[in-house]
Amino acid sequence: MAGLPEPVEALINAFERLPGIGPKTASRLAFYILRQPEETSRALAEALLAIKTATSLCPICFHITGAGQEKCEICADTRRDETQLCVVEEPLDVLVVERTGGFMGRYHVLHGVLSPIEGIGPEHLKIRPLLERVREGKIREVIVATNPSMEGDATALYLRTQLQPMGVRITRLARGLPVGGDIEYADQNTLLRALAGRQDL
Amino acid sequence: MAGLPEPVEALINAFERLPGIGPKTASRLAFYILRQPEETSRALAEALLAIKTATSLCPICFHITGAGQEKCEICADTRRDETQLCVVEEPLDVLVVERTGGFMGRYHVLHGVLSPIEGIGPEHLKIRPLLERVREGKIREVIVATNPSMEGDATALYLRTQLQPMGVRITRLARGLPVGGDIEYADQNTLLRALAGRQDL
Repeated sequence: MAGLPEPVEALINAFERLPGIGPKTASRLAFYILRQPEETSRALAEALLAIKTATSLCPICFHITGAGQEKCEICADTRRDETQLCVVEEPLDVLVVERTGGFMGRYHVLHGVLSPIEGIGPEHLKIRPLLERVREGKIREVIVATNPSMEGDATALYLRTQLQPMGVRITRLARGLPVGGDIEYADQNTLLRALAGRQDL
Repeated sequence: MAGLPEPVEALINAFERLPGIGPKTASRLAFYILRQPEETSRALAEALLAIKTATSLCPICFHITGAGQEKCEICADTRRDETQLCVVEEPLDVLVVERTGGFMGRYHVLHGVLSPIEGIGPEHLKIRPLLERVREGKIREVIVATNPSMEGDATALYLRTQLQPMGVRITRLARGLPVGGDIEYADQNTLLRALAGRQDL
């Protein structure tokens, strides 16, 4: 961009590489940082540098945990139900489910979904350790909470074929109208699902 | 948040402090960074650390420039019209006007607007150096390109009272309907301005 020193360009480019941040937002963020005291940019820079060395994956559920910890907080919490396992795609999904306050079991993070187009097969996800966890025998229900997308559905179906022989109950999150939503604005597929899954009043 | 190691929380908090980034986007960005190779977070961290030491303000127009440079690229460009001066609130506004390609004069960055409520008076902005530049006598037109907001208008009026005795032409950006906009969705004030400023076809 005309009249812009290289360090500012570099910062704009670095922001642009983040998801959901376009060129305009990136410039706005960079110029905001320029106006702020050095503390602001230093805090973000230090958090960015620490993130990789200070975190690791829980060896049981593969959620993000502090480096050097034997297991994550959720796996370590003995008050949680060991018979229910919620399988999610990404660590962020654990937070989202936790925020609802409606689940008190354990988690398993797949770190992705099956995607033949992108060449992602079962061996690229944390599916084998999931099967091992279920094989241990304590788990009675596996709630497959992958996204309601084509890949999420395919992954759920694959997990069902693998888990069914083990005799556990396998469930999937309900599809239907979002709470507070409007039938008028619901897409056709959601409405079809909501009809098919209708419940007695 | 439950089950989240401190470094991840720190990164989410640091992202949340940026403008326009709420808790959800901040978590999404932090987890995106976690999934990426270390290079991504390092590039952003380094750009953030470099930004303060590697940049300074142009002593003539107060636009952002590389540290140690005598003047910014625009002030150094002898092909640009020295008789026209565009006064903007922030360095980002220089980029926005430059991107239009419709202005070939010089700039002056105020670094803010007058705001009695926030205790920002003329002495807090780069107004005195602006008056000195105009007093030198080369400038024939000052285009006041502050935002079309209450503070932007007040700043423009203040500048007019200061600049009028110097005998320069003082203009302000036109108000009216945005190009590609729809009358139906225009707010009342914009429509009033568009009516008052109507032009012969």
